[in-house]
Amino acid sequence: MSEALLAGLRVVEFSAFVAAPSAGLTLAQLGAEVIRVDPLGGNIDHLRAPLNAAGASLYWAGLNRGKRSIELDVRGPAGRALLRRLVLAGEPPILLTNLGLDGELGYDALAAARPELIMVQLAGSPDGANAVDYTVNCATGFPLITGDGAQPVNHVLPAWDVAAGKLLALAVLAAERHWRRSGKGQLVRLTLSDVAMATACDLGYIADVQVNGTERRAEGNQLYGAYGDSFVCADGRQLMVAAISDRQFAALLRATGLHDALPRAAAALGLPLDTQVARYEARALISAALAPWFAARTLAEVAAAFSDRALLWGPYRSFAQMLAEDPRASAANPMFRLTEHPGAGRWLTASTPLAFGAVPRLPPGVAPRLGEHTHAVLAECLGLGAAELQQLQAAGTIGPTQIPGPAAEA
Amino acid sequence: MSEALLAGLRVVEFSAFVAAPSAGLTLAQLGAEVIRVDPLGGNIDHLRAPLNAAGASLYWAGLNRGKRSIELDVRGPAGRALLRRLVLAGEPPILLTNLGLDGELGYDALAAARPELIMVQLAGSPDGANAVDYTVNCATGFPLITGDGAQPVNHVLPAWDVAAGKLLALAVLAAERHWRRSGKGQLVRLTLSDVAMATACDLGYIADVQVNGTERRAEGNQLYGAYGDSFVCADGRQLMVAAISDRQFAALLRATGLHDALPRAAAALGLPLDTQVARYEARALISAALAPWFAARTLAEVAAAFSDRALLWGPYRSFAQMLAEDPRASAANPMFRLTEHPGAGRWLTASTPLAFGAVPRLPPGVAPRLGEHTHAVLAECLGLGAAELQQLQAAGTIGPTQIPGPAAEA
Repeated sequence: MSEALLAGLRVVEFSAFVAAPSAGLTLAQLGAEVIRVDPLGGNIDHLRAPLNAAGASLYWAGLNRGKRSIELDVRGPAGRALLRRLVLAGEPPILLTNLGLDGELGYDALAAARPELIMVQLAGSPDGANAVDYTVNCATGFPLITGDGAQPVNHVLPAWDVAAGKLLALAVLAAERHWRRSGKGQLVRLTLSDVAMATACDLGYIADVQVNGTERRAEGNQLYGAYGDSFVCADGRQLMVAAISDRQFAALLRATGLHDALPRAAAALGLPLDTQVARYEARALISAALAPWFAARTLAEVAAAFSDRALLWGPYRSFAQMLAEDPRASAANPMFRLTEHPGAGRWLTASTPLAFGAVPRLPPGVAPRLGEHTHAVLAECLGLGAAELQQLQAAGTIGPTQIPGPAAEA
Repeated sequence: MSEALLAGLRVVEFSAFVAAPSAGLTLAQLGAEVIRVDPLGGNIDHLRAPLNAAGASLYWAGLNRGKRSIELDVRGPAGRALLRRLVLAGEPPILLTNLGLDGELGYDALAAARPELIMVQLAGSPDGANAVDYTVNCATGFPLITGDGAQPVNHVLPAWDVAAGKLLALAVLAAERHWRRSGKGQLVRLTLSDVAMATACDLGYIADVQVNGTERRAEGNQLYGAYGDSFVCADGRQLMVAAISDRQFAALLRATGLHDALPRAAAALGLPLDTQVARYEARALISAALAPWFAARTLAEVAAAFSDRALLWGPYRSFAQMLAEDPRASAANPMFRLTEHPGAGRWLTASTPLAFGAVPRLPPGVAPRLGEHTHAVLAECLGLGAAELQQLQAAGTIGPTQIPGPAAEA
């Protein structure tokens, strides 16, 4: 078998923003056929920053690469009927969405026509209230312990969206597995706040409050529960060091020449250093001992001294520095390939981070232009002919709205 | 079919810390049988903070709930032979790990005995270097744009571990699907740095550098690309407000009584407010206009004025406040149930955040005690008898090391 890992899986994605599109992206990268449906002119995320000089969204391009893009008049009855037919044509029908769908596009109406339907739907909160990553994150306690604790600090990575996206993709596979075993479809529901609050539970934050009556405090860039901290080098560059295991801690002391001095200083102060927790308790002393060593060296000098593979460390880098300095963020990494995305630009593009041994990793998908595959998808999936497609486009029922039709339909 | 969604899936998890254990947790919550293997006395994460008063790790408990826990002398030949037999006994054999495995426990040796083997393995970096969430995160650019930009700020949520955990779980399902279709197993590899760098690509950060020659700057708690900011109320409580769509922005102006004043002020300054990007450009003005409104009201007064469901907002809460104030973090949420975890304590425990319509959601799993299921698992999976198990335990080949044997084997 040399076909793609998820060959045979077709997903209709009616979505916006991060979580649901990233779920579709995850599946597309493994070889599923993912059809992203936008309203005519694009959904609310179609022009989201960052934009390129021509006004195309690099964000939309990033999250939809490798998908087929179609535009439908999802507010009008003819467009809605087409969307319904497109969803129901799947085998099994699979619909991935984070948008409100009702009437003939609601789960009950779709499942009445095709009980095998798998619909995976993300919402904000289990009580039906809207929520996005920003308003879920502030509910969870994390911003209050990020940074130095003086002010709440939001994460910049939309971490709940990212986690939800992977879970939505997993849900598609789990539901398809169930369909293969039982012949049955189902509605799978997920909310962003549940993802966040379940994670708070997984990591012990809820237990800490309810069992211990305490909760974690802000500790800047220090690790929690083991030793780790950030440091400034002589050239102003900063880096993160972690030493969780005994072996990692020993390697850190060796590399910095503190293998005698620090244990003696700790013994003088009655601070043991022999366990993760002990080193966490002694973190202020350890950092105080290490800081001058880093302050006396440039980042390059630290790197030269830190060749021991047991050391856990890395410099802080901007995105530009990551691309300029880190070989993991280059075409030397088999995950990445410099790829041209028509209308958007050319950049180092990731394929799936998962390397499956049984099949070759697919090259990174190209970002579609909005509506680029409208005619091709409707022809293939619904058997619509060229004349009918042109009529639908002329009537404002389907796109593409922004690119010349036939030329872009390759 | 009323059996669990992932009934019939058995996964041997040899792991530590967050990512791989959370993958096993995700699968266990959907009904897979997940057997977490620890060395005698527990792996390096077994006593990780937070701990309860008796010294049990609430972190370890949280990430391993619903699994069966076994202890083996994984350094000695007899224990390694048992681990090998346990892995190979699966149908198909599935091994999930983030630890170095070699010799008779390496992929090649295991697959030689059972080519159906699915081994899903997480590492730090594709070049083989160690890495953990902290040292991957600093490589990506995110800490430099978190907070006000004066210093790098690490996220506290181990977001890369969490995302990797979901991807590993997805990989198990994708590889099992491939096995069902082809009869073939495989090694699936993932690295934490690839997860992070692929996400930077997905969200447009790499394209922004390479296409535009720019990159995102730190902007505190403000949204990027649309309007959103955090505010302080009269009682010192803080909250996050986002208004991405036209409808959300209109609702925000209505609720704060600024529907006339703010557009007039913006017009006077030549700042349009009619698109997401325009409102992002005008964010300083919008926040300046809103701040006094929040400063004049307590959080409760804001909540009373913000009843419109179109509004996207939420208060910042500590974990304790989340549990005290937010009904989504209570037993009123079908995802949560107050659950007793013997030896660890009693807390509001999450089942899977995914609600599959075709099967009932399983109750939250109970955290095992270390090694609790050692005898039961080896008896069931390998057919070992009671006398043999006692002999192995007496010889120091298997656990449990910390709890009385038969009583805890229920």
